[in-house]
Parts: sequence; structure tokens; C-alpha cells
Amino acid sequence: MQAIQARCDGEPFYLAQGDEIEIFAQCHRQGLPVMLKGPTGCGKTRFVEHMAWRLGRPMVSVACHDDLTASDLLGRFLIRGDETVWQDGPVTQAVRRGAILYLDEVVEARPDTTVVIHPLSDHRRVLSLDKTGEVIDAAPGFQLVISYNPSYQHALKDLKPSTRQRFVALEFDFPDSGREIEIVAVEGGVERACAVALVTLAGRIRPLRDRGLAEAPSTRVLVAAARLIAAGIPERKACEVAIAGPLTDDPTLIAAVRDLIAGHFH
Amino acid sequence: MQAIQARCDGEPFYLAQGDEIEIFAQCHRQGLPVMLKGPTGCGKTRFVEHMAWRLGRPMVSVACHDDLTASDLLGRFLIRGDETVWQDGPVTQAVRRGAILYLDEVVEARPDTTVVIHPLSDHRRVLSLDKTGEVIDAAPGFQLVISYNPSYQHALKDLKPSTRQRFVALEFDFPDSGREIEIVAVEGGVERACAVALVTLAGRIRPLRDRGLAEAPSTRVLVAAARLIAAGIPERKACEVAIAGPLTDDPTLIAAVRDLIAGHFH
Amino acid sequence: MQAIQARCDGEPFYLAQGDEIEIFAQCHRQGLPVMLKGPTGCGKTRFVEHMAWRLGRPMVSVACHDDLTASDLLGRFLIRGDETVWQDGPVTQAVRRGAILYLDEVVEARPDTTVVIHPLSDHRRVLSLDKTGEVIDAAPGFQLVISYNPSYQHALKDLKPSTRQRFVALEFDFPDSGREIEIVAVEGGVERACAVALVTLAGRIRPLRDRGLAEAPSTRVLVAAARLIAAGIPERKACEVAIAGPLTDDPTLIAAVRDLIAGHFH
Amino acid sequence: MQAIQARCDGEPFYLAQGDEIEIFAQCHRQGLPVMLKGPTGCGKTRFVEHMAWRLGRPMVSVACHDDLTASDLLGRFLIRGDETVWQDGPVTQAVRRGAILYLDEVVEARPDTTVVIHPLSDHRRVLSLDKTGEVIDAAPGFQLVISYNPSYQHALKDLKPSTRQRFVALEFDFPDSGREIEIVAVEGGVERACAVALVTLAGRIRPLRDRGLAEAPSTRVLVAAARLIAAGIPERKACEVAIAGPLTDDPTLIAAVRDLIAGHFH
Amino acid sequence: MQAIQARCDGEPFYLAQGDEIEIFAQCHRQGLPVMLKGPTGCGKTRFVEHMAWRLGRPMVSVACHDDLTASDLLGRFLIRGDETVWQDGPVTQAVRRGAILYLDEVVEARPDTTVVIHPLSDHRRVLSLDKTGEVIDAAPGFQLVISYNPSYQHALKDLKPSTRQRFVALEFDFPDSGREIEIVAVEGGVERACAVALVTLAGRIRPLRDRGLAEAPSTRVLVAAARLIAAGIPERKACEVAIAGPLTDDPTLIAAVRDLIAGHFH
Amino acid sequence: MQAIQARCDGEPFYLAQGDEIEIFAQCHRQGLPVMLKGPTGCGKTRFVEHMAWRLGRPMVSVACHDDLTASDLLGRFLIRGDETVWQDGPVTQAVRRGAILYLDEVVEARPDTTVVIHPLSDHRRVLSLDKTGEVIDAAPGFQLVISYNPSYQHALKDLKPSTRQRFVALEFDFPDSGREIEIVAVEGGVERACAVALVTLAGRIRPLRDRGLAEAPSTRVLVAAARLIAAGIPERKACEVAIAGPLTDDPTLIAAVRDLIAGHFH
Repeated sequence: MQAIQARCDGEPFYLAQGDEIEIFAQCHRQGLPVMLKGPTGCGKTRFVEHMAWRLGRPMVSVACHDDLTASDLLGRFLIRGDETVWQDGPVTQAVRRGAILYLDEVVEARPDTTVVIHPLSDHRRVLSLDKTGEVIDAAPGFQLVISYNPSYQHALKDLKPSTRQRFVALEFDFPDSGREIEIVAVEGGVERACAVALVTLAGRIRPLRDRGLAEAPSTRVLVAAARLIAAGIPERKACEVAIAGPLTDDPTLIAAVRDLIAGHFH
Repeated sequence: MQAIQARCDGEPFYLAQGDEIEIFAQCHRQGLPVMLKGPTGCGKTRFVEHMAWRLGRPMVSVACHDDLTASDLLGRFLIRGDETVWQDGPVTQAVRRGAILYLDEVVEARPDTTVVIHPLSDHRRVLSLDKTGEVIDAAPGFQLVISYNPSYQHALKDLKPSTRQRFVALEFDFPDSGREIEIVAVEGGVERACAVALVTLAGRIRPLRDRGLAEAPSTRVLVAAARLIAAGIPERKACEVAIAGPLTDDPTLIAAVRDLIAGHFH
Repeated sequence: MQAIQARCDGEPFYLAQGDEIEIFAQCHRQGLPVMLKGPTGCGKTRFVEHMAWRLGRPMVSVACHDDLTASDLLGRFLIRGDETVWQDGPVTQAVRRGAILYLDEVVEARPDTTVVIHPLSDHRRVLSLDKTGEVIDAAPGFQLVISYNPSYQHALKDLKPSTRQRFVALEFDFPDSGREIEIVAVEGGVERACAVALVTLAGRIRPLRDRGLAEAPSTRVLVAAARLIAAGIPERKACEVAIAGPLTDDPTLIAAVRDLIAGHFH
Repeated sequence: MQAIQARCDGEPFYLAQGDEIEIFAQCHRQGLPVMLKGPTGCGKTRFVEHMAWRLGRPMVSVACHDDLTASDLLGRFLIRGDETVWQDGPVTQAVRRGAILYLDEVVEARPDTTVVIHPLSDHRRVLSLDKTGEVIDAAPGFQLVISYNPSYQHALKDLKPSTRQRFVALEFDFPDSGREIEIVAVEGGVERACAVALVTLAGRIRPLRDRGLAEAPSTRVLVAAARLIAAGIPERKACEVAIAGPLTDDPTLIAAVRDLIAGHFH
Repeated sequence: MQAIQARCDGEPFYLAQGDEIEIFAQCHRQGLPVMLKGPTGCGKTRFVEHMAWRLGRPMVSVACHDDLTASDLLGRFLIRGDETVWQDGPVTQAVRRGAILYLDEVVEARPDTTVVIHPLSDHRRVLSLDKTGEVIDAAPGFQLVISYNPSYQHALKDLKPSTRQRFVALEFDFPDSGREIEIVAVEGGVERACAVALVTLAGRIRPLRDRGLAEAPSTRVLVAAARLIAAGIPERKACEVAIAGPLTDDPTLIAAVRDLIAGHFH
Repeated sequence: MQAIQARCDGEPFYLAQGDEIEIFAQCHRQGLPVMLKGPTGCGKTRFVEHMAWRLGRPMVSVACHDDLTASDLLGRFLIRGDETVWQDGPVTQAVRRGAILYLDEVVEARPDTTVVIHPLSDHRRVLSLDKTGEVIDAAPGFQLVISYNPSYQHALKDLKPSTRQRFVALEFDFPDSGREIEIVAVEGGVERACAVALVTLAGRIRPLRDRGLAEAPSTRVLVAAARLIAAGIPERKACEVAIAGPLTDDPTLIAAVRDLIAGHFH
């Protein structure tokens, strides 16, 4: 498991899509947990970083996966020399410090994660460390945030209704083209005309999802292409390696994407 | 595993639906174990907290899941410095103290849980700690309570008849609209008119279960919506993020729920 | 694992169904292991308790399940302070003390249980503790008893013929109505008329097995209903919570059972 | 795992079916491993016990099963107080002492058993203890014997050809009726007429295998029935509990077997 | 797990296929992670070794597989005498030293590998050692490189879009025939005519992929054949053992390949 | 795991089938790894023993199976008294000593074996011990040899192309009848006429593979039959127990093989 604690030195760059900042702030004030739904690379993690900064709270992120257990989250006894030392896991740290706890791609986690989440997400707001016998009240400011991508097909993996209904849901999508052009220009270090071309290209590729593309190109890949272009790689080549290649291995889809690229950058 | 011991400071708020309080009290007096059936968020946990308070017994809750083992429930030897110390698990604690032991979503637990339950649920009322060689008679006042949601489809997971028939079954459902309005108004902090509108909306959404909704909206999500409205979020937006989003990821169902919301809150 | 050693203070109540007491006693004298077949709650455990009392032998029960291993049955080394101490498991204890060893629902156990059973069930009557290097002859009076419910469908779980043919088989069924009325009246604390009504009701419900009921109502649920009635719960309500609810979650079957209840108790 | 070392005080009773004694003795002299094929309870274990006695070799039996690992067979380091002590497993003991090593129901074992068997079953005749770094030449007199029941359907479990072809195969079947009558009379303690009736009955039941009976009744169950009859249980009842019940749980087959019993014992 | 740290004594031989050297160098400068796609044996590993040499960075390779866990990658506590010592895994070493970290056949790894990769592959560039509580910023020069072969059919194994879109993708294929001839002649130690014949033969075999060949012959097998020929093995035989045999076990395909060999080398 | 180190006292008996000795010797000189394909019992292991003797190298054999892990191959830390001692596994020993490392039935091994093999089978020729941090260059004379039987159907188990193409492939088959007669006569201790009859019989049985026989009779079973005949067992009986029985459990095939035996030995 890999828990990253944000160490922000300044305001994380975030362009609001709607009223998500206000709703999140209210949920924080009311102690309501929040779930973020949305596609890959559309800015969910950035949003949580931004909110942690704005609310003045530390942030603890955990990327969830199949092998993640309750012990990974809560902590464990470690043997150091002769001593047995308890080491808090990331959830316990977040609860003690009143942090924003962000469980990314929570549907990937094993079912016992649910058990950790439930008593933190209702009126109890407690965490029980079964191995130490300790029951910890969440410190003021603590908030639980989870995220997932609803467009994947998870036949066997899905949040149970008894879990889902504990959260307020915020939906995310790719930024609209105005905002996306601004992001690509700023983060990719290219001129506006190039950013416009890249975002327009993305708009032509995204409909391929109906023809089998697993996921639309994210803003992230547009920024990567922009950075290569800014570094002197020819535009077409930059788009092929930073956009077409990462999207798919399917030869037909690759060819279609390359045609679109060739149509935009001669 | 996550065992929460209730620390009630006052009477937990609970509105009776029928004669469940009296039947539970009689079962407690007779030493009959109880199973609670009912949908998510309809108040089963609250009911047990209320009964524990009313009967003056401590309460021990265990949220069951796939990885829960008998050791988690009964206890284990821990190494502390040079010493090996036995630490009671939540079931053992409940049995020693004569507590109300609440195993939530028991169908999720692994089959060896059954083995712990059986001798506690018949005339023997004993718990045997195989690892310490101890056999513990349940203290007076001990009662076993389990719960599950019968509306999920558990192809492979089901209580065996030899387990089921050890329990008296109490069925729970959403409160009727009068009681639900009262709950939403009190817990959500909104005026009665708003509570009426939210409960009426829920009544329109619940039939969507026949069109594929996995679970009807619980009273819990209505309270969350009410709290956001009370905090100044516009009613429609509050219902979208607190009711529509948590219910489903299906675009058609989301749209249907949003239409119903738009019809209620302009 | 959960091994319960009976501590009988008096003769356990048991009404013989046929010649099972004499056959069991002969098997005990001859050193022949016994298997008990029969539905849930029909008195198999009681019968073994009764025979242990009658034969003046201690009794060791083990409820079998999926995660039960040979170590659970035989014993293990435990670390206590500096020392490593061998702790006998329930089977080893039973073998040393010449007890009646009762393996309940043995088809649920893992296959290595078989290995423990075989040399105890033929002319060898030995138990080998591979971890200590000890080979123990079963003390006089030791007898192996197993039980299971043949009406479940265990596609993958079944005793192998090489195991089955080591046992003498006793078949159990629900008591006939005369005996069942006596049991319900004595154990449930109700008058004979009420016991008659409950047993008659059960006789009407049991045929629903042909319409999908997983298991017929056992004598156990009738006793539970009787005890609630004796405590003042109205008869119909008592039957609904103690009989209908525990039997099934199927709405159609529940309704059918409730109709039968309503026909018996107005 | 359960390794039983035979402690024969006298010649184990065994009636030869053909030339199996001579062939086994030659294989022992030639160092050829032997596999015994045959149905449950037809005397394979007895035969090996008999041969061990006849050849003057100790015998080590291991009943194989799904969870049996190479460590169980070879040995392991155990911690005793401060020391780490190597403890030979049953195979290692057999190899060091030149014993007859009998792996019963070997198809049930896990695949790494194969690895232990192979270098013991060809010209190398060595056992390598990877954990101690020791390579042990099998002591003179060592012989590997395996057994299984070819009539089970093991879709996934089967000896690989590269294993099978290392063995000389001896086929076993139920004894012919003359020998079986003698066994039942001697071991069951009944008169010859009764033994004849029991063996005749078995001859009528065995063809039911074509109608779904998983396994024919073994000589073992006839002996059990005989012993109950000798103890005073009526013949019909004794046959029902010792023959019909252990064979099957199928109601139709049970009824057919009971009819056959009723036809033989009035 | 098997992490190999390159210890290059001179420039690793690599013939560029296109602009991959420049793009990789730009990605390294920009901190963009790279994925290499391409068939077996086409030079992906060589390319990374070459780039590590060219960029003057150490290189750490990890061959991924099904059993690879996050602990294998990150490190673990080891007990040495009385002490517990933390030992960095290969990823941690690479991060500390600013190495090129090459995860070969990354689709074979378990899902928790993803969790290690993600925070190293975006703007965070950190590695969090949950077990020591340490958060490590990647040293300057660190770069993440992954590779896989898109032509295998991995029904269940595939990189998630949220992982893929973090990388710039470089596609590799077999070298064109001019370059392949040069490689075979240099590395195989044969004359140019022989290298031409081998490469021409490969060109005739590769279309058999459409007739069921799992993978086309790589440059690697051509070099092996050349080395055997250079050592005096007859050409036809060398091609049969170094090219035909390794490609397939299918008798029809083997025959087809042998016919092609016979057509080239008389 | 079971690693056997050959301790040859003289030249292992091996009759060459073709030019396999020369090709293997060249591969050894060139550092090219070798894979041996062929049916059970056709002499692959003997061939490797012979080559190890001929090349004057020690030989380390590992029989691969499902549970074989990288730790089994590479080594592990063992606790001995107070000390933690590293113990080389068989692969590490082979690499240090420049031995012939023979991985028998390599397709049975778990996928992480691949990871051990790859860097030993290309230009790197190194082994990395992740647990000790050591990287070992293979000593001169080290050679990797793997074997498998391509005629089994391994739906899920197959060497990956990226593994296969690292090896030079030598194909083995049963010896031709002249050589097989010589082997049977020498190793079985029978006269030439008897050896001829046994080999002729085998030639008649082998076509039954087309009628369902899993594997043709190997030279090994012919030698076993010969040894029993030499020891005085009648020829027909010897063939039945040493050839027919080990081949199959299918009654129809057994009968067919017995008919062929009866036709050869009256």
C-alpha cells in the first residue's frame, strides 16, 4: 500500500467545473462523506488536493487495490529490536489528525475496507483498532472522500448500496474545451494555437469510445503531448507517442487515431 | 475487523414501527437469539442501540465481511515484549460481560462464524476458546443479534437452515411516511414542508427498483439532502448529489431520478 | 474451531424414536463408529449427549466447517513466554480420555479431516500426532460419531465411499406428532392445546418443501414460538416471528406460511 | 497428515487372491515400486501390512489428501525452547529405515508429492532434503507402494503418465464369495449360514452400481453387519444400519437396497 | 523477484529504428514515464540499457510476474541476528539513486504494482514506504520505463486506462532486414551471405503467424542459429534446433517451418 | 522441492539417437541454453546425466511442479539457533559451481521461475539474489537445460514465446527398435529373444494412442517387465502388471492391451 501525504507548498492549480467547491465545503462542515465519480485523469485527485489546501487540512491519499487489507489501512505491530511497536496506518493517522482521507479507486479494495469505512461515515465517526483495543473519535476536520470511475465494467466489484448511500456524490467529467485549452497551454508550455489544436483533436478522438476505445484521452495525455512539442518533437510524432499509443493496442483503433492526428497536424 | 462498543450518553432516538420492542425484550428475557431482516439504512443498527440502552446492557457491534475469521471474533495471542498475552475478541468480550452482541450483515462472514454462533444460540449458551482451553458460559443478559438484507441476491452466500432456525426473525422496512417526515425534519434540520417534499420524492423513486435500481433510497440519504439544503445548497442540487448520485451509476436511471427531482423542486 | 465438552448435570431429555439407543450402545461396545443422518434440528446432538450420559463417557463435540484443519482437530504447539507447549486439540483429548467424539456436519470439513478419521475408525483405533511423533491408542470407551444432513445438495462436498463405509448409519427424522407435541409442551411451557396447534401447523408447512422451501420447520422453531406465546406475545405474531421469518426470505413462501398461520390462530 | 507406523504383533490375516504375494516379493527384491489399484475396503492396506510382516520390514503409511505438502512428507524444522530441531517426516523415516512406504489414495495428494516420489522410484533411489541439504540413499529393503481407486471419476486429479510408468501395477477386487464368506464368519463372529446370507446379499446389491450406486458394499460393511447380528441386533435392522445406510443417501437406491435386505432376512 | 542492475562496461550495441532515442531523451528531461510496446526479442531491453548508458544513469530492471508483490518491489524488514534491518527493494533503490527503473512485462505483475507506479508517474514523483513511514522524492534523473507485448491475448490482464495514460508510448518491431542482417552477422559471427539467408528465411516464417504460430521468430533465434553454424553444425540442422524447435510444438507448423528451412539450405 | 545432484561414478549408459551429443556440446561451448522435448521415459534425464559426465561438469536437477517458488530455487534464510544463515538453493549452487542446471518438466513450475531463467539465458548470464542483495555471474561451464513433454495438453500451462525463443531445442523420441532391444536386454537382464518380443509388443501397443491411450509405453516399463521375467514371473503376468496396468485404468484399453500381450506370450 502506498499512502501519500500531501505536502503542498502553495495553492494547487484547480479550475472549478461548477459548484463542487461549495458543496464539498458544506459536506466538510456537516461531516458528510463525499464520493467522486468520473473518468481517468479528469482531475479528481487535484480537486481533493485543492480542497485540503482551501480547508487548511492535511490530506492522506490511499490508492486502493485488490490486495489492500484492513491492516494496511489501520496499522500493525512491528518488531524493532526487542520491542513491539504499533505503527498507525494511513487511515488511523488521518483520523487522529483530522485530515482529509482520500481513498482512490475504492471499488478495487477488498471487502473488509468497507468495515473500516462504515463507522467513520455515519453519526458514530469512530475508528476501532481491534488489535490495540483502542477506539478513536475522528478529530475535528476529518473527512472521508472516496473516488471511482463508473465507466469501467466491474461485474464482480461494485460498492454495496449500504456503502454508497453513506456518501454525497459529486460527478466529474473532462473540463469543457475552454478550460481544457487553458490547462494544456499552462501545464504543457505551448502557445494557445497549439493547445487549441490538441483539444480539438481530443474532441475528435473521444467519440471513438463508441467504436471500442476503452477510455477517452484525458487532459493528462494532451499535456504530455504539449510538453514534447514544446521540447521540439514534431507535432505529429508527439501526438502519436503521447496520445495514440497510450490509448489502445488495437491496430484498427490505432490507425483511426493516427488518421485523426494526420488530419490535424501536417 | 472493526468492533464498536456503544457508548451511549442518552436514549438513542428510535421510532417504533410496530411491536418489535416488546418482542425483542421477550426474546432477551427468554434467551432467544434474534435476526433482523431489512433494507439498507432502515434503522436496524439504531434499533439494537436503542434496545441495548432500554435493557441496560452494553452493546458490541461487529460488521461482518468476507475476510472475517473466527480468530477475529474470539481473540488471539499477541506478543508484547517478552510476553504472550491473550486478547479477547469482541464476541468473547460480549459473552463475558453479558452484552448485546450485534453481528451486522452476517451473511458476508466466513463459514466458521457459524461455529461460533451455534453453541451461543441454543440451550448451551457457551463459548469455547479452543486456543486457551477455556469454556465460557454467557453472562446473564447476553444476547445474540444478527442482521442482513434479504433483498440482495447472494447466489453463494446464504445462512444455512440449521443456522436460521435458531433465531426469532424481526422484519424491518422503511418507516411509513409520517414517521419518515418526522425523522427527516429532526435529523436534517429542515422545515416540515421541505421534509414532506423529500419524503414524497423518495416515494416516487422507490418504484424504480422494478426498473433496475439496486436499492431504494434510504432515510439516510433524505437526511443528507436535508442537511445540505439547511446549509444553503439549492434544493435541486442537494437532491442530485445526496440522492441521485449515491443511488446508481446507470445513466438511464440517473436521468429518471433527476427528472423526478426536477418535478419536485423547481 | 469450537469444541464443546459436555458438562451434563443430569439426564439430557431425549425421547427415543426407535431402537437407536440399543444400536448405538452395541456399536459402542463393538467399537464401530456411527454416522447420524437427518434434517436440521431433529435432535441428533441431543441424542449424542443422551448416549454419552447413558454410557457414562465424556463427550467432545466439534462443529465442522470449511476452514477446519487437521491442526485444529489434533492440536498445535503454542508459544508461552519462552516455552513451546503442546496443546491437545479436541480429537486428541477425546482419544486420550475415551470420550464420545462428535463431529457435527462433517461434510463441511476440509478433506484432511478424513485422514484423522480413518485410522480411528477401523481395527487400528489409533491417532498419530505427526508433530510430536506420538501415536496414541484410543482409550477404552472412545467412540467416533459423525453427522450430516443428507437433504442438502452438496455438489462438490460429499463423504467419499471409503469414508462412509466405515460407519454404521442411524437415520433421524422429525419426531412423530405425539412425541413432538410432548416436546413442545414441556420445553415451550405452553398448554397441550397450544402445542397441538403448533405441531398441526408445522404439519401443514412441511409440504411446502415441494414448492421451494429449503428446509421444513424444525421442532426447535415450534419450541421458540411456544415460549414467546407463554411470555404473552399473541399467538399469530409469535408464529410469524419464530416460524415464518426464520424459514425463508422468499416473499411468496412467506405469504403462504403466513396464510397457514392465520388459518390456525385467529 | 497422519503417518501410522505398523506395530504388528503377529501375522496380519490376509487371504491371497492370486499371485500378488509373489509378484510383490519380486518387486521388493528388484527395487521396483508397486501401485495397488482397487475399490474401497477390498483389502489393499491389509495386503501391504501382510507383506511388510512377511518381508520383515517396518511399514510407514501415509493417507494422502488435498492439503498434504512435501514438508508434511519430508519433515520440518521445529522450534523447541531455544533450539531449532529437524524432525524427519514419514517418508524420510521410511527411507532411512528401509521401510515399506505406503502412500494411500495417492491421487488425492498435491502435485509436489510427485517430486518426492520420482527420485525414489527410479534407478537413483535417493531422497533429497532440500532444507537440510542432505541427500539420503534409501536403505536396503526400502520400497515405495502407492494405491488408489480407479473407479472414482477424477476429472482433474490423475497420476501423470510419467509417474504411472514408474510402477508395477497390482489389481485388487473384492474377494470371491468363498473367501469373503470365510472372512465375514471369522471377523464378524457369526455362523457360516449367516455369513453366506450376508455375502449373497452383497452379491445382489453390487449390480446396483449400474443404477447409480457410487460404490459397491465392501467386505468391511458385511463384517460390521455380522458383528451387530452377533451382538443380538435383529438381522434386518443390522443390515439396514450397517449396509444400506452407509452406501447411499439416495431415497430410491436406499429403498432398493432395503427391498433386497427384506428378501434375504425375514 | 529478480532485479538486475546493469553494470555496463561500454556502449551497449543498439541500432536505432527511428527517432526513439531522441523521444526517450526528451521524456527523461521532462520527467515523462515511457512504455515500450513490441514483440518478444525485438530489442526493448537492449534499448533501455543503451539509453541508460547514453544518459549516464544507472539502470534497475525488474522482470514482472504473477507473484510479484509490492513488498518485493519496495523492500522489507529482514531479521539478521538480533536486529531488524530494512532492505530497500529494487524500486526504492532506483528512486533513491535516480536510476532508470525498467519494469519488464509489466502486465504480468499483480495489481498492487500499480499503486507503486502511480505516484511515481505523475507530478508527485514520490515513493511512500508505508512500512518505514518514509516518503522519498525521486532523485533527479529517475525515470520509470515499462514494457509489454501487445500481441498476447490477455483476457484478464491488461493495464488499466488510468495507468496507460500516464506514459508516453514507443512502439518497437523487428528491425528491417538490412539492420537485421547486420545484427545477425555481427552477433552470430557468420558471413554476410549466411546472415542474408537466415533473415530471408525468417521473412518466410513470420507470415505463419496467420496460420497459428504464436509468435514470429525473433532476431534472437536467428543469432543462435548463426552461432551454431559458425561452430560447425550443418546449416539445416542448426536452423531446425535453433529456429523451428523453439517456435512451436505443433507438428503441422513444425513441418511447415522445416520445409521452409529445407528450401533455403540444401 | 527436490534437487538432486548427480554423483556419477562412471559413464552413464546412453545410446545416441542422432547428433544430439554434438549439438549439446556446441551449445555448452557457446553458452546457449537447451530445451529437451519428448515423451515420458525416453531418456531425457539420462542424456543430461551423460552430457554432464562427458563435459566434466557437476549436474543439478530440479523436478518442477505447481508449488515450486523462486525461493525454493534460489535459497532462503534459515534460523539456526541464534543465527540467521543463508542457504543457497539448487539454482544458486549450480550458478556458483558452473554446473549443468536441469529443470525437468519446466512447464509445471510457477511463473516466477521464468524470472529466474531469463537473465541466466541471455547475454547477461547473471543471477540476482534479491534477498541478499548479491548479483552472481554464472561460473564458466554453467548451462541451463529445461525439458518438457509437448504431447500433454496444457491448456493453461505453456512456456511463453519470450521464454521459448531463448533456447535451442532438441527433440527426443523413443529409441528405434534396434537400440530399444539392446537397452531392454542389458538393463532388464533377459535374453535377446525376450527383449525382441517385448519391444515388438510395445510397437503394437503404441498405436493405441489414437484410440485414447494417454501415453505410449516407455522403454522403462519394458525394462520393468523384463526384470520380472528374469526373476521367474511368467511372461504374460509380468507384462500385465508391468505394462498393461501402469498404462491406463480404462477397462476397454486394458482389455485391448491384454489381448496384445496374450498374442505375444502364450
